[in-house]
Amino acid sequence: MTTYSAPVEEMMFLYNHLKDNKDYNEIQKFKEINSDLVKDILDQAAKINQEIVHPLAKVGDETPCVYENGVVRSPPGYKQAYQQFIKDGWTSLSCDPKYGGQGMPKTVSTFFEEMLSSSSLSFKLYSELSIGAYHCILHHADTKIKNKFLPKIVEGKWSGTMCLTESQCGTDLGLIKTKAEKQEDGSFLLTGQKIFITSGDHDLTENIIHLVLAKIPGAPPGTKGISLFLVPKFNVNDDGNIGTRNGVKTLSIESKMGIKGSPTCVLNFDNAKGYLIGKENKGLSSMFTMMNLERIIVGIQGLGIAETAYQNSLAYAKERKQGKANNTNTEKADEIIKHADIRRSLLSMKSIIEGERSLSFWLSQQIDVSLNHSDENIRKNANDLVSLMTPVVKSFFTDMGSEITNEAIQVFGGYGYTKDQGIEQLFRDNRITPIYEGTNSVQAIDLVFRKVLKEKILNNFLKLIQKEISEHNNNQQLKKFSNIINDKIDIINKFSNWLEKRNKEKRDDVSASCNDFLKILGYLSLAYSWFKTTKVSLSLKDQNKNFYNEKINTANYYFDKILPRINAHYESATSGSDIIMNAKFG
Amino acid sequence: MTTYSAPVEEMMFLYNHLKDNKDYNEIQKFKEINSDLVKDILDQAAKINQEIVHPLAKVGDETPCVYENGVVRSPPGYKQAYQQFIKDGWTSLSCDPKYGGQGMPKTVSTFFEEMLSSSSLSFKLYSELSIGAYHCILHHADTKIKNKFLPKIVEGKWSGTMCLTESQCGTDLGLIKTKAEKQEDGSFLLTGQKIFITSGDHDLTENIIHLVLAKIPGAPPGTKGISLFLVPKFNVNDDGNIGTRNGVKTLSIESKMGIKGSPTCVLNFDNAKGYLIGKENKGLSSMFTMMNLERIIVGIQGLGIAETAYQNSLAYAKERKQGKANNTNTEKADEIIKHADIRRSLLSMKSIIEGERSLSFWLSQQIDVSLNHSDENIRKNANDLVSLMTPVVKSFFTDMGSEITNEAIQVFGGYGYTKDQGIEQLFRDNRITPIYEGTNSVQAIDLVFRKVLKEKILNNFLKLIQKEISEHNNNQQLKKFSNIINDKIDIINKFSNWLEKRNKEKRDDVSASCNDFLKILGYLSLAYSWFKTTKVSLSLKDQNKNFYNEKINTANYYFDKILPRINAHYESATSGSDIIMNAKFG
Repeated sequence: MTTYSAPVEEMMFLYNHLKDNKDYNEIQKFKEINSDLVKDILDQAAKINQEIVHPLAKVGDETPCVYENGVVRSPPGYKQAYQQFIKDGWTSLSCDPKYGGQGMPKTVSTFFEEMLSSSSLSFKLYSELSIGAYHCILHHADTKIKNKFLPKIVEGKWSGTMCLTESQCGTDLGLIKTKAEKQEDGSFLLTGQKIFITSGDHDLTENIIHLVLAKIPGAPPGTKGISLFLVPKFNVNDDGNIGTRNGVKTLSIESKMGIKGSPTCVLNFDNAKGYLIGKENKGLSSMFTMMNLERIIVGIQGLGIAETAYQNSLAYAKERKQGKANNTNTEKADEIIKHADIRRSLLSMKSIIEGERSLSFWLSQQIDVSLNHSDENIRKNANDLVSLMTPVVKSFFTDMGSEITNEAIQVFGGYGYTKDQGIEQLFRDNRITPIYEGTNSVQAIDLVFRKVLKEKILNNFLKLIQKEISEHNNNQQLKKFSNIINDKIDIINKFSNWLEKRNKEKRDDVSASCNDFLKILGYLSLAYSWFKTTKVSLSLKDQNKNFYNEKINTANYYFDKILPRINAHYESATSGSDIIMNAKFG
Repeated sequence: MTTYSAPVEEMMFLYNHLKDNKDYNEIQKFKEINSDLVKDILDQAAKINQEIVHPLAKVGDETPCVYENGVVRSPPGYKQAYQQFIKDGWTSLSCDPKYGGQGMPKTVSTFFEEMLSSSSLSFKLYSELSIGAYHCILHHADTKIKNKFLPKIVEGKWSGTMCLTESQCGTDLGLIKTKAEKQEDGSFLLTGQKIFITSGDHDLTENIIHLVLAKIPGAPPGTKGISLFLVPKFNVNDDGNIGTRNGVKTLSIESKMGIKGSPTCVLNFDNAKGYLIGKENKGLSSMFTMMNLERIIVGIQGLGIAETAYQNSLAYAKERKQGKANNTNTEKADEIIKHADIRRSLLSMKSIIEGERSLSFWLSQQIDVSLNHSDENIRKNANDLVSLMTPVVKSFFTDMGSEITNEAIQVFGGYGYTKDQGIEQLFRDNRITPIYEGTNSVQAIDLVFRKVLKEKILNNFLKLIQKEISEHNNNQQLKKFSNIINDKIDIINKFSNWLEKRNKEKRDDVSASCNDFLKILGYLSLAYSWFKTTKVSLSLKDQNKNFYNEKINTANYYFDKILPRINAHYESATSGSDIIMNAKFG
């Protein structure tokens, strides 16, 4: 089994020294949240994750969810752990106090999301979609529905789902067939089948609130005719108590590569009673409130799982003795952490993980500002950055999760391939993250066609980086980093100019290069994070030499060893798509 | 479940048009092997693989091997399939007719290895090690042992294993503890425990012949005191019949990420009777006869599994409709193969797979020459090329296998993550290949420190490439490819000069860059293969326009889209190892 120790020191370093959004401190709502309180929360979070959640990871993998006689049973121990989890209030962390939430900012709740991902993604998924449902209802439902459903969701007594996918459509939601027929009382009856529904049914909560995309007969074709409905597993009486069973039935659960402790359901809606959320035919945009925050959290899943993979390979490398390193004088075998190639592998993981954590902390600040700042322009500006970075964090972090968990297996050698160590499970659990909530290719298309070419919001981010660099132009110790970043910004500028041009002349050139563009922006974003970390570390060095010198060293690794990948992506992408479109594929 | 159709046309293209080793035709032994015969063998091979072996892949994954009461049972259907397999003579394909083999060259048997890997790696592993054992016995045992054991192994009635690893050592065989004590009759009694023994015990054959590394008391320490022994599961009487059970016991089998249809055993040797193979204390070099050929076959496994992943993603992409492509006029969703990004992904797989197949065909010629040519110098020269390429093919093909099976999952989206389609199994099955028979890092160290720096056999290969290019200097259609290859050869030359220098000044710089060097040589080798394929395709184009134009197009893809990776590896590696060695890792 793997071990996990929450990186609270790393998180507090970010919280204390990298809260660098100048508008953040103006948010009235979070005035009282100070470093001591955050430290206290993180310590508590570490405790429940290490002691209660993390042991569930292996249990869920070995004793997956079971579907029998129409009922889904969670793995052994999940129910008890969930009871503790909601009793301690973890589902309510970032929710509005109006509905029983604790009102914590994203800067704090994102740390918690990471810990939970590191501990057990399967267990996390039972409550994760609830937070998505919470946001969707909060922003789009009427007061009556909010008052009826939100407190129970915040409390964790009821959970939520997102029902989008049908067998004929995942990416292309314009193709959905589920029907919603309006009733005289204003409610709807939904009929259709949804697949791949995470936590679609289980025994942890007394009710499950499905948010379902469906078409009202006569609606416009395609994505313009999709509406959003709230469909509870059990109807809820006006007094808030659970009533009769609604017409939602679980037909089966999937047998999957990983996240076996999480039930992925086929749900059948047969005249199930539902309530319209938001306006008719505007369901997709309401769902996207949920989707966008959810996509960032999926990125955090990739980060969290990578952290566990790193921690365990590091521990193994310090223990396992094999072969002689170059500069040791003993006769016996050395710990493999003394071998340069193993160190390279570990540093590669570490530099990506710490860069990602720093980037996601910065992004959490932008989310907090975008949702809570009193100035509309400031909100808008922050929102643009969130919008730009959403597909990047979703795809880049999850792809890096695959890379890092794959490398972790390799550090363990043969032991990485057996089930005992739990390492191979991390790869399998993570492998869903580049797929769900919109595949990484869909994210890349969203980034390039929508965010870069249509909304043109890339430049704000590049300016932010350039401003950061130029403010430290006189700092000789940062010169190396500034120069490299400037080179990479040149590349991304050339790339986006090329995209602009090709978009007018040959859209396939753009489509074929979206993935490379996303990768480049991902690597550059982490470079931006490492630049800021290095700047802070240089100035604080004397306070904790070990900690800050290691940060500076890891930054150097990232710049020297990881960033060269940008050039390969650029060269590969900008050779165009003629060859790609010419292929006949036998 | 996946489907599989053996790429016989691709293989015959190589056999008919890329048999380009000028010394190959001088091998007397293979004079009678002609294209018709090879085609006939491949058609038969395709049939058994498609119809009998491939269905076993999913069976083995869903109903893994079982260990009960000291006995290992193979998955349902494996026994019957194996009976057919040996009845048709597939275990004897490349073996010496003297012992009942069919005497086929590696150029042919390698194609078969690929098909078997594509169909079911688990099933393949039951006979694969037998061929390794065959080679080891053939080259190092005395006549009596050869006559006693080889015919049964060739026939497939007995199988073989390689027993190297112990719990404290995989990579570092100097640490083995298994003891072998000499008896008066010249035999030995072996005592110790071996782990990770592929096909270490099973019910497909009537006997299992273990090749075991052990130490004779008083032997020199480390790798210089290791001897090799043949230890049968059942003792064999002088008349060749099976006798009493020997002191080898199976303690357990591993629960693994993949290849679940193949038993990975912990074997206990308790005064088990064994026979010395080769000279005392020279066991490691005898074992390497087996290991080296085996390592190439592991590379072929990566290629074979990638082929199945590619075939299935291609078929899915032609069928699945989702989203609108850029240049189609329908209102409805298009097949995803019309999307540029999916095409890019498929072409990436295809260009690597076909390049690898071509490289491994070339390498098979070198093996045939190195083993069978009458001229010692020619043998030596070919052997050097085989020696250089062994770690490259092992590591590069298996790493690309991970990349390609991972991409295949992505093409399938959510369906790639569920068990039904069998796609995720390909990733899991392949994932052992970068680990066993020496991890890919060990291969990279072998390549750089032994082959490049010590034996200095890189230049022969580079000269071969340069010769090939310079012979077609006047061919304008090949100019683009020549220029790119020349650029990449410059890089690899600069890199190897750097290695020479760093090896004298700072060995950690070399150790930290071995993996990057191997990758670069891998990419360059495939470029060499694609160059030859393009040359041939240009000259034959009028005979089969579709086939050859597609080859030329795929070559262009490989050069434009894949080769830029070389530069990133070079830049990353040659920034040295100071940062790597400075890291404190908390």
